[in-house]
Amino acid sequence: MKKWEENIRQVTPYVPGEQPQEENIIKLNTNENPYPPTRKAVEAYLTTDFTKLGLYPDPTASELVGALEKYYGLEEGQVTVGAGSDDVLSLSFLTFFNSDKPILFPDVTYSFYPVWAEVYRIPYECPPLDKDFRIRPEDYKKENGGIVIANPNAPTSLGMASSEIEEILQANPDVIVIVDEAYVDFGGESMLPLLSRYENLLIVRTYSKSRSLAGMRIGFAMGSKELIQALRNVQASINSYPLTRETIRVGSAALEDEEMFQKNLKRVLHTREWAKKELEQRGFLVLDSQTNFLFARHERVSGQRLFEKLRDRGIYVRHFNGERIREYLRITVGTKEQMERLVSTLDELL
Amino acid sequence: MKKWEENIRQVTPYVPGEQPQEENIIKLNTNENPYPPTRKAVEAYLTTDFTKLGLYPDPTASELVGALEKYYGLEEGQVTVGAGSDDVLSLSFLTFFNSDKPILFPDVTYSFYPVWAEVYRIPYECPPLDKDFRIRPEDYKKENGGIVIANPNAPTSLGMASSEIEEILQANPDVIVIVDEAYVDFGGESMLPLLSRYENLLIVRTYSKSRSLAGMRIGFAMGSKELIQALRNVQASINSYPLTRETIRVGSAALEDEEMFQKNLKRVLHTREWAKKELEQRGFLVLDSQTNFLFARHERVSGQRLFEKLRDRGIYVRHFNGERIREYLRITVGTKEQMERLVSTLDELL
Repeated sequence: MKKWEENIRQVTPYVPGEQPQEENIIKLNTNENPYPPTRKAVEAYLTTDFTKLGLYPDPTASELVGALEKYYGLEEGQVTVGAGSDDVLSLSFLTFFNSDKPILFPDVTYSFYPVWAEVYRIPYECPPLDKDFRIRPEDYKKENGGIVIANPNAPTSLGMASSEIEEILQANPDVIVIVDEAYVDFGGESMLPLLSRYENLLIVRTYSKSRSLAGMRIGFAMGSKELIQALRNVQASINSYPLTRETIRVGSAALEDEEMFQKNLKRVLHTREWAKKELEQRGFLVLDSQTNFLFARHERVSGQRLFEKLRDRGIYVRHFNGERIREYLRITVGTKEQMERLVSTLDELL
Repeated sequence: MKKWEENIRQVTPYVPGEQPQEENIIKLNTNENPYPPTRKAVEAYLTTDFTKLGLYPDPTASELVGALEKYYGLEEGQVTVGAGSDDVLSLSFLTFFNSDKPILFPDVTYSFYPVWAEVYRIPYECPPLDKDFRIRPEDYKKENGGIVIANPNAPTSLGMASSEIEEILQANPDVIVIVDEAYVDFGGESMLPLLSRYENLLIVRTYSKSRSLAGMRIGFAMGSKELIQALRNVQASINSYPLTRETIRVGSAALEDEEMFQKNLKRVLHTREWAKKELEQRGFLVLDSQTNFLFARHERVSGQRLFEKLRDRGIYVRHFNGERIREYLRITVGTKEQMERLVSTLDELL
């Protein structure tokens, strides 16, 4: 190793699902929403004053922050935004997890949590999910430096009751508890009604799944004013302007079309239930999803093999190599047509 | 302090220049380019396929990275991009400065460097600029954990010869030397011709000043393949998709219109020289700017007072409270008309 390399922060980078740029594939691997975003969002994009592309955006993104606070019935100062929930979560790790004691998150969960812990050199432990892939609240009552619970969890797709997360909160008054609600619009119980009761609770969400805006990179956190101010201070110490001008407008506009939003959600949920049954009829064990993806394992064929065969046919699902989950596939719920193609392709393969 | 607050990372956040959203002001405080971006950039913005707003962008931003490598005559793997050069610099600090020894940057320089050092808990020292506000290479030859030189420097507007920076590089083969060339298109000598000779040299640039695209948040770094790979690994461990789909396209398109780019540069340089003389005639000491802003002090009136009076008249310049520079104003070079307004307003005030 050269001398100048010695003080470089070495990491094993996170590998996201493939983002193939070609057409005519069926992309069911990164949980994007198959339906277009609300027309109001598109209009906001097209009508952003492009003569102002040369001006810095509003560093506080106040139009979007205010719109979110209003939409969720929160007070001023209870929301902050970032460039995707990954940005918000990453800076939450940096802001809130500075103890010598390990932070806790499940062994099977969103695979970016250990990556952030590693890059920021935060000690961590991963209590295993039980045999049914469920989070056990009792595992989160030992001494720790912070907790991250994805609810619903990925890639398991399973939600836990908010009363169980409240049990965790009550056992942990002295650390920050982050609840990652990226998928909560598709099912599961949100902690939002409990936000006012717990100053140390941070809820993180995204526009990438339920709002069909993964390309715009919008994420946000909700919490007590003290918590949000601490996070904003660190955000402002990293990058003054994480969101572009049009992103701020698109994010605000997207909140105005509740009808379209609910309609798209219902379509996804309907297709999800249909697809689950179809897979079960073909010998798959499918967990009870409360998200916009299915977590499924075939009774005979290995996950790796199915993943590769599907990809050969232009159908991209997600496969993870982790010990407990390598026989499973994580399949995004696409349109009905896309899921029909998936099912008929599986019929050919199996 | 509540117990859960104890392990929160406390920071004094960076305060950017005001971004007033109202019209009819003259904004000369954050070094935005007063001319619109090239039409090709605007076309790219308007023609980005908005039906794809729901899809994640390319995590590698390969279209933009490739366009930059080609434009600057670099090999594949020598460029990485981020959401503004602040994002690139922030993650460069995290990636490259992990020693117990302090990093070095001048006492008067871009005020975000100490903020990143503080938030990431990197020890640092600030060798003072000399009495003419110049960086002295001999100050950067002591033991250190890394070096950051802005060339041209902000807010002084002064450039240093690349031979002087090379002197610093030759004295520091074992640490990473970052040269922040945010303003180099307006003057000063770039280190780019020397990039192939120094594996530990990182050059960082931005689209926010010379390319009139501050609102799109595009920054990039150039370096040896090893250096860029190390930075990319950390970037990928923080956020998979820092740039939106349209930003990637706009950034690439902006490189295609060299004629417009050069034309706007010349206009700024011309106005700069005109404005410098006008200020000097009115009793200002103005440093020999090689950037798109002027750093100027009046012989009689304090910097703070002038700053406030100008702001009362709807003209926003930048003022810093630091001990050595509080009598100065940092004035972005706007259009000729804007600078004429500034000058006539100063005539009324003085």
